[in-house]
Amino acid sequence: MVADKINKVSIVGGTHGNEFTGIYLVEKWQQQPQLIARDGLTVETVFANPKAHGENKRYIDSDLNRQFASKDLADATLANYEQSRAKVLHQHLGPKDAPNSDFVIDLHNTTSNMGPCLLLVQQDPVYNLLAGYLKMKMPEAVIFRDEDHLAKDQHHLLASCGRFGVIVEVGPQSQSVIRQDVFEQMETMTGHILDFIQLYSDDALPELPKQVEAYLYLESLTLPVDEQGRRTAMVHSRVQDHDFEAIHPGDPIFRSFNGEDISYQGEKVVYPAFINEAAYYDNNLAMSLMEKVTIKVYGD
Amino acid sequence: MVADKINKVSIVGGTHGNEFTGIYLVEKWQQQPQLIARDGLTVETVFANPKAHGENKRYIDSDLNRQFASKDLADATLANYEQSRAKVLHQHLGPKDAPNSDFVIDLHNTTSNMGPCLLLVQQDPVYNLLAGYLKMKMPEAVIFRDEDHLAKDQHHLLASCGRFGVIVEVGPQSQSVIRQDVFEQMETMTGHILDFIQLYSDDALPELPKQVEAYLYLESLTLPVDEQGRRTAMVHSRVQDHDFEAIHPGDPIFRSFNGEDISYQGEKVVYPAFINEAAYYDNNLAMSLMEKVTIKVYGD
Repeated sequence: MVADKINKVSIVGGTHGNEFTGIYLVEKWQQQPQLIARDGLTVETVFANPKAHGENKRYIDSDLNRQFASKDLADATLANYEQSRAKVLHQHLGPKDAPNSDFVIDLHNTTSNMGPCLLLVQQDPVYNLLAGYLKMKMPEAVIFRDEDHLAKDQHHLLASCGRFGVIVEVGPQSQSVIRQDVFEQMETMTGHILDFIQLYSDDALPELPKQVEAYLYLESLTLPVDEQGRRTAMVHSRVQDHDFEAIHPGDPIFRSFNGEDISYQGEKVVYPAFINEAAYYDNNLAMSLMEKVTIKVYGD
Repeated sequence: MVADKINKVSIVGGTHGNEFTGIYLVEKWQQQPQLIARDGLTVETVFANPKAHGENKRYIDSDLNRQFASKDLADATLANYEQSRAKVLHQHLGPKDAPNSDFVIDLHNTTSNMGPCLLLVQQDPVYNLLAGYLKMKMPEAVIFRDEDHLAKDQHHLLASCGRFGVIVEVGPQSQSVIRQDVFEQMETMTGHILDFIQLYSDDALPELPKQVEAYLYLESLTLPVDEQGRRTAMVHSRVQDHDFEAIHPGDPIFRSFNGEDISYQGEKVVYPAFINEAAYYDNNLAMSLMEKVTIKVYGD
């Protein structure tokens, strides 16, 4: 392996204004930058959407973490608050074709019971190594491949602005609160990622496991609605809080408000994530469905 | 016991626009009124703050469930959205000195791990009987005396508009989601309360336990802050999710963002509730502290 020099790392909090953990961690690290300092790296912190946080909302006008597709960044008529803020952040972290930031770590919370998750949103051998390193250091971490087949230009996520980029997603945590367990998991995972980046950049990684388990996003499942578009059912209690546990064809997946079970109609075993995530109600999403996959740590 | 005739019962959902369970239950019962019908009673449903629900917020301008003190209801200069809406609801459910509604049941959710709770906000022998009946039918229910010493005129809660009034408070549930377990607990508890009201009104209550355990509100505890008013600590993980479990003097209660424990400085054992409730961050509240008390079911 030839060392791939990393210079600039950007840790981003508050991309969603009511996901508090990243915001509080960024504030902590601004006061104590030695905690995120690593030899050979320049590590900065970025508070992505302070205006939304000031109003204690996910966003002001539209979801900031959906504004980073290259065609949208190039469209000056997309001018609401988050569309404008995205262009500024893209100038700072990117631009995508020649990024200022070598590695973006974007910190998020979910209301779902997903534990500490690393979301990989692009494909490159570095992510396979990172997955192996993280699972070795933090076995409880879940590796989540989130539409990582998309080209960088198409990706609408903030993390796609950097040369490399990942999302740290930790839950369950209600919007607008801080839980100690979630705070510590996010701090720990971010520390491991910084350690990895330094070791990777210095070509000094230890021996890693040959392969690790991961989950690959397949599709989103919507909540059942009636002809007027009103919800008629909720996530089944057998599924609620059971993120990453198998759902088999025919398993109950929703419960109607009248008490009837609705079963999963798919043809193969899937693994749910973002179950009953509060922020996804805007789009009436009940959960993401994933398949279990293996990442070859030293693979392409 | 002389029968105390109850005619009109009002079930209120959506006093807080992002507490979904009561809103969805009220909608269900509007479509299927037979589910809440009880012989001899007129049972209505009220959607208290549809505007806040439309914006998926707790409130538009100020907390609706703090606007019902008689002096505020009489003050025409208090004219923001919720202050206006409170006056309309008070005309409908109250007025406090001659209420249209004999019994108000106000449905709420909390992000705290409180389970199904009945909040008693006034004192009267009927609440003692209700506490006994509910604990007999639903032993997992928690009875919570919430500043029930206050006179009806002073009370700023919506439930104080009726001749009698209680709050059904069920969690944990993130704001703006529906959980099946919470939905079923709220539906079950509300059904028991309706059954109780009918039996009470008909002087047909069964034999009840002589006494039941309850928790009495003492005070609220705020999160530690620095000189600039910024939070410096979070609820300790040993306390998080442990609503209604004893805290002893000296027990760790907060953890600073730098990893130091902060212990409880009180002089007697207390029981926490509303631990890390998202809606209370506005006022920087960490939890309510309660004492354990006994309710004499047949007492005054």
